[in-house]
Amino acid sequence: MPSYATNMRLKFPILALTLEAVTIVLYALLVVYDTGDAHGHDGSHAESNTTHSSSPMTLYPMFQDVHVMIFIGFGFLMTFLKRYGFSSVGINLLLAAFGLQWGLLLQNIWHMHDGKIRVSIEKMINADFSTATVLISFGAVLGKTSPVQLLIMTLLEITIFCINEHLVVEVLNVSDVGASMTIHAFGAYFGLAVAGVLYRPGLRNGHENEVSVYHSDLFAMIGTVYLWMFWPSFNSAIAEPGDPQLRAVINTYFSLAACALAAYATSSLVEKKGKLDMVHIQNATLAGGVAVGTCADMDIQPFGAMAIGITAGVISTVGFKFLTPILASKLGIQDTCGVHNLHGMPGILGGLAGILLAALYIASMGFCYYQYGLIMKIPFWGQPPDQNCFDDSIFWEVPEEEEENEERLTHGDYSKTKTEA
Amino acid sequence: MPSYATNMRLKFPILALTLEAVTIVLYALLVVYDTGDAHGHDGSHAESNTTHSSSPMTLYPMFQDVHVMIFIGFGFLMTFLKRYGFSSVGINLLLAAFGLQWGLLLQNIWHMHDGKIRVSIEKMINADFSTATVLISFGAVLGKTSPVQLLIMTLLEITIFCINEHLVVEVLNVSDVGASMTIHAFGAYFGLAVAGVLYRPGLRNGHENEVSVYHSDLFAMIGTVYLWMFWPSFNSAIAEPGDPQLRAVINTYFSLAACALAAYATSSLVEKKGKLDMVHIQNATLAGGVAVGTCADMDIQPFGAMAIGITAGVISTVGFKFLTPILASKLGIQDTCGVHNLHGMPGILGGLAGILLAALYIASMGFCYYQYGLIMKIPFWGQPPDQNCFDDSIFWEVPEEEEENEERLTHGDYSKTKTEA
Amino acid sequence: MPSYATNMRLKFPILALTLEAVTIVLYALLVVYDTGDAHGHDGSHAESNTTHSSSPMTLYPMFQDVHVMIFIGFGFLMTFLKRYGFSSVGINLLLAAFGLQWGLLLQNIWHMHDGKIRVSIEKMINADFSTATVLISFGAVLGKTSPVQLLIMTLLEITIFCINEHLVVEVLNVSDVGASMTIHAFGAYFGLAVAGVLYRPGLRNGHENEVSVYHSDLFAMIGTVYLWMFWPSFNSAIAEPGDPQLRAVINTYFSLAACALAAYATSSLVEKKGKLDMVHIQNATLAGGVAVGTCADMDIQPFGAMAIGITAGVISTVGFKFLTPILASKLGIQDTCGVHNLHGMPGILGGLAGILLAALYIASMGFCYYQYGLIMKIPFWGQPPDQNCFDDSIFWEVPEEEEENEERLTHGDYSKTKTEA
Repeated sequence: MPSYATNMRLKFPILALTLEAVTIVLYALLVVYDTGDAHGHDGSHAESNTTHSSSPMTLYPMFQDVHVMIFIGFGFLMTFLKRYGFSSVGINLLLAAFGLQWGLLLQNIWHMHDGKIRVSIEKMINADFSTATVLISFGAVLGKTSPVQLLIMTLLEITIFCINEHLVVEVLNVSDVGASMTIHAFGAYFGLAVAGVLYRPGLRNGHENEVSVYHSDLFAMIGTVYLWMFWPSFNSAIAEPGDPQLRAVINTYFSLAACALAAYATSSLVEKKGKLDMVHIQNATLAGGVAVGTCADMDIQPFGAMAIGITAGVISTVGFKFLTPILASKLGIQDTCGVHNLHGMPGILGGLAGILLAALYIASMGFCYYQYGLIMKIPFWGQPPDQNCFDDSIFWEVPEEEEENEERLTHGDYSKTKTEA
Repeated sequence: MPSYATNMRLKFPILALTLEAVTIVLYALLVVYDTGDAHGHDGSHAESNTTHSSSPMTLYPMFQDVHVMIFIGFGFLMTFLKRYGFSSVGINLLLAAFGLQWGLLLQNIWHMHDGKIRVSIEKMINADFSTATVLISFGAVLGKTSPVQLLIMTLLEITIFCINEHLVVEVLNVSDVGASMTIHAFGAYFGLAVAGVLYRPGLRNGHENEVSVYHSDLFAMIGTVYLWMFWPSFNSAIAEPGDPQLRAVINTYFSLAACALAAYATSSLVEKKGKLDMVHIQNATLAGGVAVGTCADMDIQPFGAMAIGITAGVISTVGFKFLTPILASKLGIQDTCGVHNLHGMPGILGGLAGILLAALYIASMGFCYYQYGLIMKIPFWGQPPDQNCFDDSIFWEVPEEEEENEERLTHGDYSKTKTEA
Repeated sequence: MPSYATNMRLKFPILALTLEAVTIVLYALLVVYDTGDAHGHDGSHAESNTTHSSSPMTLYPMFQDVHVMIFIGFGFLMTFLKRYGFSSVGINLLLAAFGLQWGLLLQNIWHMHDGKIRVSIEKMINADFSTATVLISFGAVLGKTSPVQLLIMTLLEITIFCINEHLVVEVLNVSDVGASMTIHAFGAYFGLAVAGVLYRPGLRNGHENEVSVYHSDLFAMIGTVYLWMFWPSFNSAIAEPGDPQLRAVINTYFSLAACALAAYATSSLVEKKGKLDMVHIQNATLAGGVAVGTCADMDIQPFGAMAIGITAGVISTVGFKFLTPILASKLGIQDTCGVHNLHGMPGILGGLAGILLAALYIASMGFCYYQYGLIMKIPFWGQPPDQNCFDDSIFWEVPEEEEENEERLTHGDYSKTKTEA
C-alpha cells in the first residue's frame, strides 16, 4: 500500500505562500488597472447601457452573480457529505482565491497592451470562470485529496485551461459563450482523469463517511439553488451586450426551468417507490444550464432552450443512477460528486462539436491530464489514507463534541458523553 | 378513513412531463424574445437610466433579487420543520420552475402583439410574482400534500391568479404595485381555502413532526433574512422608473425596519417569560413588506411607511399567537406556516379596498377556491396518510443514519446504532 | 455576585417600542424622499452611468450587496456557537433594523437642506455602514448580554459613531473610503471596551456553551463567504464613480484573495499537526477587506493591495491564536468573536494614521467608551448570569427536543427521550 504523509504543518504553508509570492511578483511586473475605459466611450450615448465599456462598473452586478456561484454555489453544493463540509466550503474558497489570481494572469498573458494586463470587471469574470474548471474537478476527487494536492491541481489545471481556451476560442475561433465545452466538459474530464489516476481499490465498496446526513443535504441545497438562480448570469455575463445578452439570459432561464421538471420526473421514475433522490435534485436540475451554455446567446428560441434543458435533465439523472456506479466498478473512476453527469455529459451535449470530435477531444484531454494526474500521486503531497477519506478531521480542527458524537453513533459508547457534564 | 396512494412512481413523472410537454408546444407557437426594445429607445438619452426599456438588461439586477426571494426566500423559510426540509426547498423549486413557465404564458396571453408573447426581463419578473401566490398557498398546506397535488394546485392557482390579476389591474384599473391583495392576500386565502378542504381531524392535536429542531430554525432564518432584505426589490421592480421606484424602495425599506422592532417587541410581550419566538421572528418581521406593498410607490413619506410596518408587525405576531390556533380548532383550517398572519391579514391591511370590499372579495374567492380544493381531494393524487405528514421520507430518499437517529430519539432504541460500526 | 433580572417581558417591549416611537416622530418632522436627483442631472449624458445621481437607482445593486453583508454576513458569521444561533442571526437583525433608522437620522442631522433629510440610496448605504459598527461590537460581547443591553448599546454607539465620523471625515477631512478606522477599528475597540467593563471572572476558564458544533461552523461559513464576496462592494459603494470606484473594487478583490491564502497558510502553521482551524478561516480570511479599506480607491496597484491582504491575513490569524487568550487572561477582555483580530488590528493597519496617532486614538476612544460601558452594567438591563451565557434558551423559545437532546448529551440521561414517543 502507498505511504501517506498527511501532516500539512510545513508543506502546505510553504506551498501556499510560495505560490502567492510568485503571483505577487508577476502582478507587480505585469498587472495594472484598466482605467482607460471610463473615458474612452463617453461619446457613445446610444449604447450607454448596452456596452460593457460605457462605464467600468456596468458588468459589476453580473460579476457578483458569478462570484456567488463560484464561492457559495460550488462551495455548498459539495457539503452534502456528512463529515466533509469544512473542506467543501473551505477548500473551495482556498482554491478559487488562488485560482482567480492565477487565471487572470494566464488568460491575459496572450494579449497584453504595451506589456501590461489591464484589470477590468470583465477580466475578473473570466478569472472566476477559469476557477470553475478547478472546482468542477474538485468535485470528482472530493474527499480523497489533500489541500497540497489540490493547490497543485489548481496551478496545473488553470494553466492548461488557459492554453486550451486560447486555442479553442481565439485560434479555432469557436463560439462558446457559456463555455459548455471549454469550462464544464473540460473541468469534468480533467477531474475524471485525475480521479482515475488516484483510483482507490480500498474504496471499491464505498466508505462509511461517503454518505449524507439530513442537514448536510440541506446545506448542499443552498449551493444548488444559487447555481440554479444565477446560471443565466454565468451564461450571459460576457455575451455581446444588447439582444445577444438578453437571449443568453432568457435561454438559460427556460432551459433550467424545463430541466428542473425533467430531473424531478426522472428521479421519481428511476427510484424505488417513485421517491425523489436529493443527489439528483441537487445536481441534475442544473444540467440545463451547462447544456445550453454554448448556444445560449443564439436564436434558438425559448422552446428550443427548453428542449435542451429537458434532454440534459433526463441524461444527467439517468447518469447518476446508472452510469456513475459503472464508471467506478468498470473503469475505476470514483467520481464523488458525479461531475460527469452534471458537467461532463451535459457539457458535451451543449458543445457544438459533434460526437466524434468531442470523443477525440476528450480522449486527447484524458491522455494529457493522465500525465498530470500522475504528478499528484506522489505520496509526499499528503494524500489521505483510505480510512481517513471523506473526513474533515484529517485536515481540519473538528469540534470535540462532534467526534465523540460520531464515536457514540458508530460504537454505541456513551460513557464519554457523561464526562462532558 | 380516506384511501391513500402515495406511490409517485408513475403518476408524478407522467403529470410533470405532460405539463412540460404542453408548455413547450405552447411556447413553440406563442413565445419569442423581446429583442425590439434595445433599439426602440436609443433616442431617449435623458432617460437612459430611468426607463425599463433603455436597455433590455436594466431590470436584470431587480429580477435576480426577486428570483432569490422566490427560490431561497420562500424555499428556506419553510424549512423550519424538523423533517420536512427536503420538501420545503425541493418542492418549492419544482413548483416555481413550472409556475414561472405557466405564469409567463397566461399573464401575457391577454395582450399579444401579432400573435406572439415577447419575453423581456420585466415579464420574467411578473412570472416570478405569479409563482409567489402558489408558494404562499404551499405554506398553508405544507406537510399534508403530495407533489402531484401541488403540481395540480400550481396549474389551477396560477391560471386563476392571471385571470384575477387581469381583472383587478387591467379592467378595474386598480393600482397594486407590491400586490398586497392580488398576490399576498390572494395566495394566502387560496391556500387557506385548500387547507380547509383538506382538513385532517387526525391532526387536531398536532403531529410529532410538526415541530422544529434547533438547526431547522436556523435554516428557516436564511429564508427570512433574504425575504427581508430584498422585499424593497419585490415592491419596486415593476414600479415606474425614477421617483416612484425610489419611493417604493424607501417605503418598503422603512416599513420592514419598523416592522422588525414591532414584531420583536410583540413576540416578547405575548410569550411566557418575555422570550422571543422564532416563528414570530421568521414571519412577522416580514409583514411590513406585505402591508406596504399596494401603496409602496405612493408619497406616504418614510414615517407613513414605518407606521404601516409597525401595525403589520403587531397584527401578524398577535395572529400567530392567538388566531392560528382558533382557525385550526374552530374553522378547521390547519395553516402550517401561518400564511394568514404573514400574507393574509397584512395583505388585506395593505389593500386599498375597505374592510367590506375585502371581506366580500375573500368570501367570493374562498367559495371559488373551495371548488378547486375539492378537486385536489381525489385520493388518486396520493395525499399522504396522517401519520406520514410532515415527513420527507414518504416522498424523498432520506439518509439511513437519520431515520435510525430518529428512531433512537423517539423509542430510545440504541441497539441499531451499534450495527452501524 | 451581581443580581440578574433576565425576564424581558416588559422592559424589552417597552424599550423597543419607545425607541421606535421616538424615531417615527423625528422622521415625521425631518425625513423626506430625495426625489430631486432624477431631474437634477438629466443634462449630463456623458456621465449617465458614472455618477451616483444620474439615476436615483444607480447605486441600488451596491446597496443590496452591503445589505446582504450586514444581515446575512454579520448575522451568520456569529452563528458558530453551538447554542447561540438564534441570537446571532435574530438579534443581529433587530439591532441592524433599529440601527439603520437611527443612523440615517444622526448621520445627516449635520447637513440638512431647508430643515429636511432627503433619503437616497447612498444615504441608505451609509446607514448600513453605521450599523456595522454595532454589529462588530456585538461580536465582542456575544453571548454575555441581553437584548435590552444591546439596544441601548446600539443607541449610544451609533450616536457616538456619527459624531466621530463627522469629526474625522467632515472636519479633519480625512479620507477613509472603506472606513478601516471609522467603522472597523471604531466598532472593534468600542466593543472591546464594553467587553472589558462587562468582564466575567466566572467565565475565566471558558464556558461549556462557548464552543461550536459541526453544523454551527458551517452556518458561520455562510456569513464568511458572503462577507468575503461582497467586501468589494462595501469598500467601493460610496467611492467616486468611475476610476476610483473601479480601483476600490479591484484592490479589495485582490487584497481578499491574497489574504485568504495567507490566512490558510498561517492557520496550518500555528495549529498542531498543521490542521486548519475554522475560527481562523471564518474570520482571518476577511481581514484583507478591512485592512485595504482606507486606501481602497487609491492607486496602490493590485500587487500593493495583495501585499496589504497578506499582512492582514497573517496578523489576524496570529492574533486569534496568541493574542485573544492574553487579552482575556491579562486584560480581562473576553472577546467572544475575536473582533480585535478581524476588525481591530486590521483596521489600525488600514488606517492612514501612524502607530502613535492610532494608539492615542484608541486610548482616548477606550476611555470614552468605558464610561458608556458602565451604563450597560446596570443589573436592571437583564444581563444573563454566567451559567446562562451563550445559551439561546434564556431569551429565545428553544425546541423541546433540543433541550432534551442537550441534556442527554451532557447528563447521559436517556429516560426522557422515551416519553417523546
